[in-house]
Amino acid sequence: MALSSSLLEQAVDQLATLPGIGRRTAMRLALDLLRREVHEVTRFSDAIRKLREEVRYCEECCNISDQPRCTICQDPGRDAGLVCVVEDIRDVIAIENTRQYKGLYHVLGGVIDPMNGVGPDDLHTLELFTRVQTGPVREVLLALGGTLEGDTTGFYLNRRLAGMGVLVTTIARGISVGSDLDQADEITLGRSIADRKPYESGQRR
Amino acid sequence: MALSSSLLEQAVDQLATLPGIGRRTAMRLALDLLRREVHEVTRFSDAIRKLREEVRYCEECCNISDQPRCTICQDPGRDAGLVCVVEDIRDVIAIENTRQYKGLYHVLGGVIDPMNGVGPDDLHTLELFTRVQTGPVREVLLALGGTLEGDTTGFYLNRRLAGMGVLVTTIARGISVGSDLDQADEITLGRSIADRKPYESGQRR
Repeated sequence: MALSSSLLEQAVDQLATLPGIGRRTAMRLALDLLRREVHEVTRFSDAIRKLREEVRYCEECCNISDQPRCTICQDPGRDAGLVCVVEDIRDVIAIENTRQYKGLYHVLGGVIDPMNGVGPDDLHTLELFTRVQTGPVREVLLALGGTLEGDTTGFYLNRRLAGMGVLVTTIARGISVGSDLDQADEITLGRSIADRKPYESGQRR
Repeated sequence: MALSSSLLEQAVDQLATLPGIGRRTAMRLALDLLRREVHEVTRFSDAIRKLREEVRYCEECCNISDQPRCTICQDPGRDAGLVCVVEDIRDVIAIENTRQYKGLYHVLGGVIDPMNGVGPDDLHTLELFTRVQTGPVREVLLALGGTLEGDTTGFYLNRRLAGMGVLVTTIARGISVGSDLDQADEITLGRSIADRKPYESGQRR
């Protein structure tokens, strides 16, 4: 695709580096940006530049934050004895959206993935261990994805945390609320039977 | 979705203004940008800012260009008597990719769309008429999309160009090369029969 403008060429090239955006979509995005007012596009590009240049991470939980400590770690209403370990910021947002969790978080910044050269030291594991050994942490809840990498990471963390006098728990795996049994994959269904629990009356779902 | 960082919030807001990008995808793109080196993100945001700030359009054909006249209009090997009218820059790229067309272009910058308040004067129609009346234009080839708006625009241009002593043609509509008849919609199939042409031996497709 030869373009008559090197400015457009460069913008399309850059947009096409985004995950899931091919050159055809990148062209559509570039043309959309071209149709906007200059000040709108300046605001757009500034927001992206500042995000990376001025980003800070919470000293305690490694969550993204504008201050040295994030709003969640600063909240006195949160249970500082319970720390939920997640892969990245998206997981924090997903759990916060449930409004069910009142503990703190620890953002690993990834999962152990030997195939892609990601080991425990590439993640914020040391910060977690320091936190558990020096802070008021009572329970570490592992909320990692149900992938091979997520399982490997959970296995590693559980083993390292074992001697630190802390309860290690993991989120329940099972059939999604509202979904049919015959739609679930066999591993999930098998696990939901193995992990069965006493029926609580009053618990409708 | 409440975020712990206003920088992230703003970047996600801005990315979500792009066509076809929802907030969930915008978050994924923002996190991808966050993982990059600062200089990479600066290059990314600069490319977008410069695209809009420094963009220029060809004085002759309204195609995007880095110089006052675009590379196509500057090319002496092109037939200046033939002008292909298209909706936007993407169409120029698509036609250039065929390597079949050796004339010049005229980029309207849209199509007549009364429902969205786009009239002929919002497009580069005046530039086209001036070009036809003052230049060496012999034929105007309308290459507009097969939509109601494309048809309306073609109808308007044909009527306006009628008195200017220029041949107005339009691209052929018909069955796509390599596609089955029963896959085509009825209007296209009907038009391909109405617009039938003498069989040329030696023409395999």
